[in-house]
Amino acid sequence: MQRYFIAPEQFAGDSVTVRGDDAHHLTRVMRAKPGDTFIVSDGESREAIVKVRSVGKDEVLADLVEWLTMENEPAVDVWIAQSLPKGDKMELVIQKGTEIGAAGFIPFVSERTVVQLDSKKEGKRIERWQKIAKEAAEQAHRNKVPAVEAPLTWKELLNRANEADSAWICYEKESTQELRIAIQRALDAKAGSASRPKLLLIIGPEGGFTEQEVIAAEAAGCKSVSLGKRILRTETAAMVGLACILYEAGEMGGETTWRQ
Amino acid sequence: MQRYFIAPEQFAGDSVTVRGDDAHHLTRVMRAKPGDTFIVSDGESREAIVKVRSVGKDEVLADLVEWLTMENEPAVDVWIAQSLPKGDKMELVIQKGTEIGAAGFIPFVSERTVVQLDSKKEGKRIERWQKIAKEAAEQAHRNKVPAVEAPLTWKELLNRANEADSAWICYEKESTQELRIAIQRALDAKAGSASRPKLLLIIGPEGGFTEQEVIAAEAAGCKSVSLGKRILRTETAAMVGLACILYEAGEMGGETTWRQ
Repeated sequence: MQRYFIAPEQFAGDSVTVRGDDAHHLTRVMRAKPGDTFIVSDGESREAIVKVRSVGKDEVLADLVEWLTMENEPAVDVWIAQSLPKGDKMELVIQKGTEIGAAGFIPFVSERTVVQLDSKKEGKRIERWQKIAKEAAEQAHRNKVPAVEAPLTWKELLNRANEADSAWICYEKESTQELRIAIQRALDAKAGSASRPKLLLIIGPEGGFTEQEVIAAEAAGCKSVSLGKRILRTETAAMVGLACILYEAGEMGGETTWRQ
Repeated sequence: MQRYFIAPEQFAGDSVTVRGDDAHHLTRVMRAKPGDTFIVSDGESREAIVKVRSVGKDEVLADLVEWLTMENEPAVDVWIAQSLPKGDKMELVIQKGTEIGAAGFIPFVSERTVVQLDSKKEGKRIERWQKIAKEAAEQAHRNKVPAVEAPLTWKELLNRANEADSAWICYEKESTQELRIAIQRALDAKAGSASRPKLLLIIGPEGGFTEQEVIAAEAAGCKSVSLGKRILRTETAAMVGLACILYEAGEMGGETTWRQ
């Protein structure tokens, strides 16, 4: 069944109003008619099957059929900090990361980042990234849309590292720190806690991090980790690191192993 | 250092000859001159640092500097059987799967496969896929190029399933079979064996498998597994399933846990 994230204020008692791109998609792409059902979510606390009551020019009015439980989100928050990659690879990271289960994305600029930040175009780019996250979250049946933040400088990113319970910087020259042990320790440390583990995975640009950057990250409380012997492209590292963390947390099939 | 896979016959004693696209890449893109070093591998048993002796019109002659050990391949062979996805997604599966560490790729056609196989164009497509695998393997520092086979029918694929030690079919409606347990059992069953575990991961097309297909696969010895609560796009499922299997085998950072 088609799913849409709508703003909380579009819920009104037992009916909802769908507007804008979503209404357009419902009427033009899905060709919705009165009586058709679809799913709406406010991305926070309400998700429901609704039935079309009326189709207007720019909006669709629908009535509640059934409230749904929201249990598709991972029990662990993993944030992806991605040094801006070339071309449209950031879009791939956001689309795939959203499907896999990222809590949010923080683009940043480091020494070897090739992409130039264009402040004029930046607003449009973030908007586009957020749209990609919304559509991927709808497609993946997620209960919330991951956040996509505005790009940070390297310094700003390191200042944020201590907001996470654990922050890991992926470094292809790292050979001693085992990713699995790092993840297990981080999850064990939060077992029984009232709050969800918040983990931050930091991925370098095409040319990787400089040694100085890795030293600075470690001084800021991050742990350097390797993703194995194969050298992954920057956009692959984000997806693979995320999948491994969520797999270890029991989120990639079968029973969830990590619980509060 | 730039890496190239070359045919075993291009090795001759303590020198190698690089030809074709690789020679072109060396001379035009890398602008190699006598004395420059690069790495060559025959994808089987020999890998070496070599030094350019002479640059000809269509070939580069180079001399051995140092033999290298070949230890970047996973200790576990994971084959990806991918129902042909739309657009250029098969290329993404092959590129990312090669980086992550797949042993090979088997495209196939199942009931809901949308892509039409065009026998005239098929040869060219397979050639292109193999080129993508070669380039991704070079970039990822792999010691061998994963195989890319010609597309199979669903029946042909099921006939091949028993060649694997374990074959898993990803099914989004599966809820009881835990991926982690399935992987651990498969690896445990091969512990101490003289041969490497050979695992087959079968991924459906955009519309997924039919229930009948899953039943047929189970009858052919495959196990149905879920990749978690988020619904992954077909190309994402391949990358994520592969990453999870290699993570469980200890191949995604730190010490390898599975050993013969």
